[in-house]
Amino acid sequence: MTRIAYVNGRYVPHGEAAVHVEDRGYQFADGVYEVIAVHRGRLVDEHGHLDRLERSLGELRIAPPMARRALRVVIGEVVRRNRLGHDGMIYLQITRGVAPRNHAFPDAADSALVVTARRLPPFDAAAETGVDVITIPDIRWERRDIKSISLLPNVLGMQQAQDAGAYEAWMVDGEGHVTEGTLSNAWIVTAEGELVTRHADRAILSGITRGAVLELARGEGIGFVERPFTVDEAKAAREAFLTGTTVLVKPVLHIDGQAVGDGRAGPLTGKLAAFYAAHMKTQEESP
Amino acid sequence: MTRIAYVNGRYVPHGEAAVHVEDRGYQFADGVYEVIAVHRGRLVDEHGHLDRLERSLGELRIAPPMARRALRVVIGEVVRRNRLGHDGMIYLQITRGVAPRNHAFPDAADSALVVTARRLPPFDAAAETGVDVITIPDIRWERRDIKSISLLPNVLGMQQAQDAGAYEAWMVDGEGHVTEGTLSNAWIVTAEGELVTRHADRAILSGITRGAVLELARGEGIGFVERPFTVDEAKAAREAFLTGTTVLVKPVLHIDGQAVGDGRAGPLTGKLAAFYAAHMKTQEESP
Repeated sequence: MTRIAYVNGRYVPHGEAAVHVEDRGYQFADGVYEVIAVHRGRLVDEHGHLDRLERSLGELRIAPPMARRALRVVIGEVVRRNRLGHDGMIYLQITRGVAPRNHAFPDAADSALVVTARRLPPFDAAAETGVDVITIPDIRWERRDIKSISLLPNVLGMQQAQDAGAYEAWMVDGEGHVTEGTLSNAWIVTAEGELVTRHADRAILSGITRGAVLELARGEGIGFVERPFTVDEAKAAREAFLTGTTVLVKPVLHIDGQAVGDGRAGPLTGKLAAFYAAHMKTQEESP
Repeated sequence: MTRIAYVNGRYVPHGEAAVHVEDRGYQFADGVYEVIAVHRGRLVDEHGHLDRLERSLGELRIAPPMARRALRVVIGEVVRRNRLGHDGMIYLQITRGVAPRNHAFPDAADSALVVTARRLPPFDAAAETGVDVITIPDIRWERRDIKSISLLPNVLGMQQAQDAGAYEAWMVDGEGHVTEGTLSNAWIVTAEGELVTRHADRAILSGITRGAVLELARGEGIGFVERPFTVDEAKAAREAFLTGTTVLVKPVLHIDGQAVGDGRAGPLTGKLAAFYAAHMKTQEESP
């Protein structure tokens, strides 16, 4: 089957999906993106992702390339053309468009939209595997709340994790607090049993899966607090886990080689993973 | 005349110069660039730019797409095919290549190389015009010594400058020191007559024009010091100016609306601009 991508108004074979070299995404990282999971053929938390996309565009003063209704039709069409009847993901990128290279915003350029699809192994099978993380300094810019394609520090951080044999790197700010992972949010259950994840300000991305898990915890009467936590607190925690669009809810077994709790997936993590797995199955159909 | 671009081994019309949407430059800002001025058909400080390019690639562990000798041939060919017999610029971008989207470095991807050309009005005419700057917080990542395409904060800063009717924005760190402009280095001549520009560590890009001007000052017996300076020091300065590849040496007349000295181009700035203009005329021919 040929993978199909949407590029600026056309559905093209994935291998031919190209943009001009003066697209500002290529020369300036002047754009934003979203990844939306597809589970059993349905988009997971589509509205949350599109809300955040619109916010990111607004913060950067990039005009939306089309209305949300039209964008949802394009996304649905990419799902269909790629026969994502089971599990996979949609990648969506919007840049400020093509214009002669100049730092300032161009006077006349249409925002560029690219949507691609990828099949993934069933999410159900992946959910329970625990992973290891390392900690590294957070060297990113100060507007991490914007889901921009300016991801070079995340790339370098993830590569550091892989070089160390870990799955993810937790980034640590100047005060010794964990901000988030390179592609996931960070959570702990403290030694005292408190469920903690960092509050979402400009220092981290407000994860859609993070938000869904907070909502699920609230609905189930599980207390939590949104605040910074230190690396030491994380290493002394009972449980730790990651959340992310394709990461889902993933137990963290070791931090910098040190076992979290007894080094196995924790019970509260397991509960939240199960709630989230159920949440993924109750999504509305695409238009 | 058709503009010609070099894209991964082919010389193509500029309008058709395209890269795949999964080029890591487009999705991750995972790449570096250089801009080289062309004056009277000759590349200005080509070796300085290629040295810095190789350093940027090394810091990011991106393999050079070809040896320097071959790269110089490509650049020379782009100059020729675009008939840059007078003034203009070469833009050169190298990314980690095309691979299925994943933060970590791909196992097998060839670095991607794009070289474009642009004609510019004669540099000689532009050199003497003074400009205004504003000051803004420096919100960039911590590796500004790497000339990466992760330029979104520079884009936003330059747009702030333009919104304020200024030519450039000087970015200010947490200690109140000016780091640099969004596309140029920052210099002052203090009230005491000291020529100052920030020392080049990870907080700023080590500008090629900056380096050339330091060398020219040294050669002419003009004293200088490389150290941080505050916004207040800059506003109390006798003279201020910018250096950059296409900016050259440009007097700063106002900082945040406040006149520098008597609000006219200063004498030392004029001297250095003249030395640099002469330097631009003494470049070797391309291979």
